[in-house]
Amino acid sequence: MMKAKTWVIAKLFDGEPTESNFRLIEEEVPSPKQGEFVCEALYLSVSPYESSSDKAPLGSALMGHQVSRVTDTKNSEYPVGTLIQCYSGWRSRSLINPKENPEALKLLKVPNLAGKEPSLALGVMGIPGVTAYRGLLEVCEPKAGDTVLVSGAAGAVGSVVGQIAKIKGCKVIGFGGSKEKCDWLKSLGFDHVFNYKEVNLDDALTSAAPNGVDCFFDSVGGEVSCRVLQHMNDLGRVCVSGAMSSYNYGDKQPLMPSPFHACLYKRLKIQGFSVSSCDARFEESRTQIFKWMNEDKVKYKEEVQEGFEKMPKAFLTALKGKVAGKIIVKV
Amino acid sequence: MMKAKTWVIAKLFDGEPTESNFRLIEEEVPSPKQGEFVCEALYLSVSPYESSSDKAPLGSALMGHQVSRVTDTKNSEYPVGTLIQCYSGWRSRSLINPKENPEALKLLKVPNLAGKEPSLALGVMGIPGVTAYRGLLEVCEPKAGDTVLVSGAAGAVGSVVGQIAKIKGCKVIGFGGSKEKCDWLKSLGFDHVFNYKEVNLDDALTSAAPNGVDCFFDSVGGEVSCRVLQHMNDLGRVCVSGAMSSYNYGDKQPLMPSPFHACLYKRLKIQGFSVSSCDARFEESRTQIFKWMNEDKVKYKEEVQEGFEKMPKAFLTALKGKVAGKIIVKV
Repeated sequence: MMKAKTWVIAKLFDGEPTESNFRLIEEEVPSPKQGEFVCEALYLSVSPYESSSDKAPLGSALMGHQVSRVTDTKNSEYPVGTLIQCYSGWRSRSLINPKENPEALKLLKVPNLAGKEPSLALGVMGIPGVTAYRGLLEVCEPKAGDTVLVSGAAGAVGSVVGQIAKIKGCKVIGFGGSKEKCDWLKSLGFDHVFNYKEVNLDDALTSAAPNGVDCFFDSVGGEVSCRVLQHMNDLGRVCVSGAMSSYNYGDKQPLMPSPFHACLYKRLKIQGFSVSSCDARFEESRTQIFKWMNEDKVKYKEEVQEGFEKMPKAFLTALKGKVAGKIIVKV
Repeated sequence: MMKAKTWVIAKLFDGEPTESNFRLIEEEVPSPKQGEFVCEALYLSVSPYESSSDKAPLGSALMGHQVSRVTDTKNSEYPVGTLIQCYSGWRSRSLINPKENPEALKLLKVPNLAGKEPSLALGVMGIPGVTAYRGLLEVCEPKAGDTVLVSGAAGAVGSVVGQIAKIKGCKVIGFGGSKEKCDWLKSLGFDHVFNYKEVNLDDALTSAAPNGVDCFFDSVGGEVSCRVLQHMNDLGRVCVSGAMSSYNYGDKQPLMPSPFHACLYKRLKIQGFSVSSCDARFEESRTQIFKWMNEDKVKYKEEVQEGFEKMPKAFLTALKGKVAGKIIVKV
């Protein structure tokens, strides 16, 4: 029997959460029985999408992916030292039975990253990278010459979307939320970059996309997204992979003009998209991304905060969209 | 040279239009030159979707389909007496050159209807029927056992959608706006029918679709549609083929909760859909519908108003959703 630290919801979010919405508790982790193993978290992901209190009732652990190392095992497929990734939530140590509810656990071995940090399995080589890859290709279906708009472009997903769209021969417009983010997006090869907090969106899109937007990869939702629809071309495709603007509101979403009207007249496809690491095409997708990384065609940024006690702080930083790239907590 | 009567926009719609938004004028129709023909309207379609003033600037003719007869011709493919359908707008007589802008004209010969009235080419055997057929099958992709919800179910499109969904083995729920409409929908075989003006939508859907809605064929938009999204299953499909609730508002759409949040968390596909009679699959689609009609599996209703001067009145009736089925003006 060992102890684990776990972050739980102390208070459901009502508007912008603060550190008081979270509480650190101790849990007991039993020794592994046949087929089970215990792992210790090395890196944890904080993601506004995965960790909103919509997804966990009061008192339960916050949800999220982690990369961890097997420390005690009764499963020969997972010897001590194996690096795995799984959806264990904000926990420092977990007992895992790979056969129990695999859909919820989302257990994978961290692939060979040729010496790169295993934390990449939470970012460009994990759910965010694969979401970018498959959401762009399967929902937005970009063709060479298309104009692709990415909101939340400096995020772990958006930054990869823009780079893959460039690989596919598209013109890429990115919205970021700060000068630092916009500068980084320019360095990644985005054709046009705007700080959406400072420009008039209509003017920006009229100048950057005079022939309209064909593909819109959206992580923001809300009013920005509704305005973008007005600039889309007939038969445009919208991949909704996040809703940053709405995570704090729960069921009380702010009101805005309905997108159904634009959807009808422009025959738009607006599709919610998320990937699971259980998906059969997950490994194939990250193999392609790794190839592009090694060819220097896909770059990434990690913001690493040290210490398990930093989880709420890192989450609030992610929620406020304050830094570019993927935010990781290193235990 | 002959005269034609034409209805034009006298005043752009601002909220609910009235007869004063329309004006009847006379136009001159030149005699046909080589390759052209003149046709006289027999039946005209009034459709909130096609004939809103969004689509026509002040002083221009209202848009819409008609079935007409060739009366003077210099085109051997269209001898006098040929029945055609085309997008000539609210005009009693038109000069047509089949080679000029075929995409805008949408010219077709009325198919052999085995003695049935050619007005069907404006309803169940025309754009509304084919929209129902292809929108349901291509966008909603219903599987046997799915729960299919149809809003505006007593309309020319919705009534066909529900019947095809029954043919495909689905459970079908229809929203209509009056007792008369709901009774008709029941007679068509809909499993559950609600007057959405009189019930609590959440209660109605909880009881009729306890396992959630898989496919939503929407002609209404606005708040009803936003509420329905809350009842949809993961990976549900929404075909937006009309937006009755929004036609009067132009750019000033009323505010409502953004559907992006539900779209993301349920991975919904929300797709705007309309068909053109120029589409390669148009004839094949109506051949299938005609087969079902003759097998008594697809029934229809026509509300025929007589007299070209009735066009605005018939349009206002359609816009208010007062009668079931397709509203046709017979000249």
